[in-house]
Amino acid sequence: MKSADILITGGTVLTLNRDNVKLHEGAVAVTGDTIVAVGDKKELLGMYTAKETIDNPHSIIMPGLINGHTHAAMTCFRGIADDMELMDWLTRYIFPAESRNVNPELAYWGSLLACAEMIKSGTTTFSDMYLFEEETARAAKQAGMRCIIGEGLFDFPSPACKTPAECLIRAENLIRTWADDPLIRTMVEPHSLYSCSPALLQSARELADRYRVPFATHLLENMNEAVQLEKKFGMRATKFLEQAGILDERFIAFHGVVMDDEDIAIFADYGCKVVHNPESNMKLASGVAPISAMLKKGITVGLGTDGCASNNNLDMFQEMDTAAKLEKSARLDPRVMSAETVIRMATANGAKVFGMGDLVGTIEVGKKADISILDMNKPHLTPMYDEYSHLAYAVSGADVETVLINGKVVMKNRRLTTIDENEVMEQVRRIARKIGASLSMPHE
Amino acid sequence: MKSADILITGGTVLTLNRDNVKLHEGAVAVTGDTIVAVGDKKELLGMYTAKETIDNPHSIIMPGLINGHTHAAMTCFRGIADDMELMDWLTRYIFPAESRNVNPELAYWGSLLACAEMIKSGTTTFSDMYLFEEETARAAKQAGMRCIIGEGLFDFPSPACKTPAECLIRAENLIRTWADDPLIRTMVEPHSLYSCSPALLQSARELADRYRVPFATHLLENMNEAVQLEKKFGMRATKFLEQAGILDERFIAFHGVVMDDEDIAIFADYGCKVVHNPESNMKLASGVAPISAMLKKGITVGLGTDGCASNNNLDMFQEMDTAAKLEKSARLDPRVMSAETVIRMATANGAKVFGMGDLVGTIEVGKKADISILDMNKPHLTPMYDEYSHLAYAVSGADVETVLINGKVVMKNRRLTTIDENEVMEQVRRIARKIGASLSMPHE
Repeated sequence: MKSADILITGGTVLTLNRDNVKLHEGAVAVTGDTIVAVGDKKELLGMYTAKETIDNPHSIIMPGLINGHTHAAMTCFRGIADDMELMDWLTRYIFPAESRNVNPELAYWGSLLACAEMIKSGTTTFSDMYLFEEETARAAKQAGMRCIIGEGLFDFPSPACKTPAECLIRAENLIRTWADDPLIRTMVEPHSLYSCSPALLQSARELADRYRVPFATHLLENMNEAVQLEKKFGMRATKFLEQAGILDERFIAFHGVVMDDEDIAIFADYGCKVVHNPESNMKLASGVAPISAMLKKGITVGLGTDGCASNNNLDMFQEMDTAAKLEKSARLDPRVMSAETVIRMATANGAKVFGMGDLVGTIEVGKKADISILDMNKPHLTPMYDEYSHLAYAVSGADVETVLINGKVVMKNRRLTTIDENEVMEQVRRIARKIGASLSMPHE
Repeated sequence: MKSADILITGGTVLTLNRDNVKLHEGAVAVTGDTIVAVGDKKELLGMYTAKETIDNPHSIIMPGLINGHTHAAMTCFRGIADDMELMDWLTRYIFPAESRNVNPELAYWGSLLACAEMIKSGTTTFSDMYLFEEETARAAKQAGMRCIIGEGLFDFPSPACKTPAECLIRAENLIRTWADDPLIRTMVEPHSLYSCSPALLQSARELADRYRVPFATHLLENMNEAVQLEKKFGMRATKFLEQAGILDERFIAFHGVVMDDEDIAIFADYGCKVVHNPESNMKLASGVAPISAMLKKGITVGLGTDGCASNNNLDMFQEMDTAAKLEKSARLDPRVMSAETVIRMATANGAKVFGMGDLVGTIEVGKKADISILDMNKPHLTPMYDEYSHLAYAVSGADVETVLINGKVVMKNRRLTTIDENEVMEQVRRIARKIGASLSMPHE
């Protein structure tokens, strides 16, 4: 008998590997931070003795989800303003609320609350862009979550830095600080093409190249932005990025709503990646990103919730549901995006977006043990003809029961092991009272 | 001191009454099947002694949700086939599965499972169209749920009846059987204009008029149907219905996706009602119903999940979220549908669609005690600036903690009091194995 730290038995193991292997009455063995065996339950029970066994015969055992784009600390602004024009929303609520309230304390507690919410809905990795990202890293470490973080870079002063040069120093410090961390990875994240000068974009590109980390930015989120950028550059934004030498396989666009066939062709040529944020795009009335056209051209697309001010939760299962349905609705064709496609966007392909395809995103021997276990013994998940269908169209985040990240159990039977849920909620409520007062709004 | 049966204390009471009154630290007193007081918590605690007190200081106390259109028993077909063309889906999967498997037993257990799922996600009333609806009524009575049911009427033979005449007899029997029931109401439901002859529609109209019950049908669900009907009638479907004398304030259209300005004007003139099913319309790629245009013309619009084969769950909170976001996205304007609007569609206005505005849909003295209590003390619902925002955009059905219908506690702390959850899941799994075998499909 070999020994393992944790033996997870089911239930059905969805590997999401290249051959899409499903194992009914399957099992996964974990030692340290790594998956050491995936196979038949009886077989693995006969091969391994484990310090801890996690068993649920009605479960689905699947790769932890990858939230490809969020602003974790913005949980503090969840629901502060809805149902209004983007510019109204930004200039009357979000920007004033941010400039008066964002500080390291908000960044830490807001991010930790986001980690609690994400773990409780089956997410094990998140990609984050905000301010004071060292606090987001600290929260993720506390939570035991995997993340890829980047300080938002701007031309104008932010609560975190006065000048673009200062922004770049913060960004580089982040990269160096977390260079060898098992959980925290970094990227370079100029906020957008409308909030960063070409010079800042070039400096950001050089920084990303120097450390070989991803370069990610908000791009072509709505038609106003597309028109504004075309005016600014005298050409389409994607063409500008190409000519400036900024596009490569480590370039990641968040949103990409207003991409046309030429933009898509350029992205495909350079191996650029896209993260789709359907719920945020719908809520802000930004339009519908041409995701099925991107997939046809071979572009790797991940899925993200965006921040809590424009969603308003971080539930990736709901996001998968919406991603599949929105594309069908927008193209008037139910075949353009399947359940399996959106699940891959949130797992295996999400990992590839960030160059982490060898690390996470599937359940395979040698990968890190980032695993979500769902309890399917519930009325709304009965009967079950097909696991993918349920994950995309019937599950919600609350069906996630147990979560492992990097081999560690961070939630067991819906109880978080790394975060004091009540404390973090109390801290964020306290911060929210200040935010509410700063805007003279009603608050809890 | 007066006596009440149940005193519910919060938390915030959202009355959804005409003035939209919110009561922070509110309370509701219930005696028998009726709400007898709504007010301040301290005040009501001083006025009433109650046999049972339900207290949660972090709760939202709101009217139970009204699922305006579903096919409850189709839980048995949840996820049996997805991501395919409507006609493929219907003719290769749904129709064969139904013709081989639908019988009273499936109708009963499928409906009871639907009741379990609906109660667990805060729904207290549902409107149902299917076959063997007497079994759906029996399941709803068992569950203690309020419903409005109608036997689906067709020109062609169904598993429930061989001829249209037989269908009409079943429909009339239903109406007479449940005439004085406190929970079960009935309506007349010809399936659609493409599956019912003008003569059957006329007989259905006469039946509905004789008993003064609603007349409800699937209408203009997608463009193919609209084209087919225009060819059949030599005029637009709505015009045909007007000329046939079928439209009045008890006429309810499910879907109404392909309604143009003239259709909307006719509906507004006659006081016809609409039930919107955004998730089903998206999943089947049917298009986007012009709901904000209908609301502008004063049409009363409810909200429904449709059946589990095209959604694939019965969660009305997710449906509200999608309804608001889809309309914003389709009109490229975030102001066209607010959080409050979709909550009213699922409560007060949903009740009005079925002529039950005096009975349920708000928390007001004299109304029936149909109440959902949500636990808001959770990471994904923290902080809270505005209750409506959270209900529309952050809550999922799993946040519902306790539910009363007609004064009876049908779920307490997520435990159903009227349904043996495990038994109903086992029964539906057994039925699903037969369904799977009948289609030679993999099954659980």
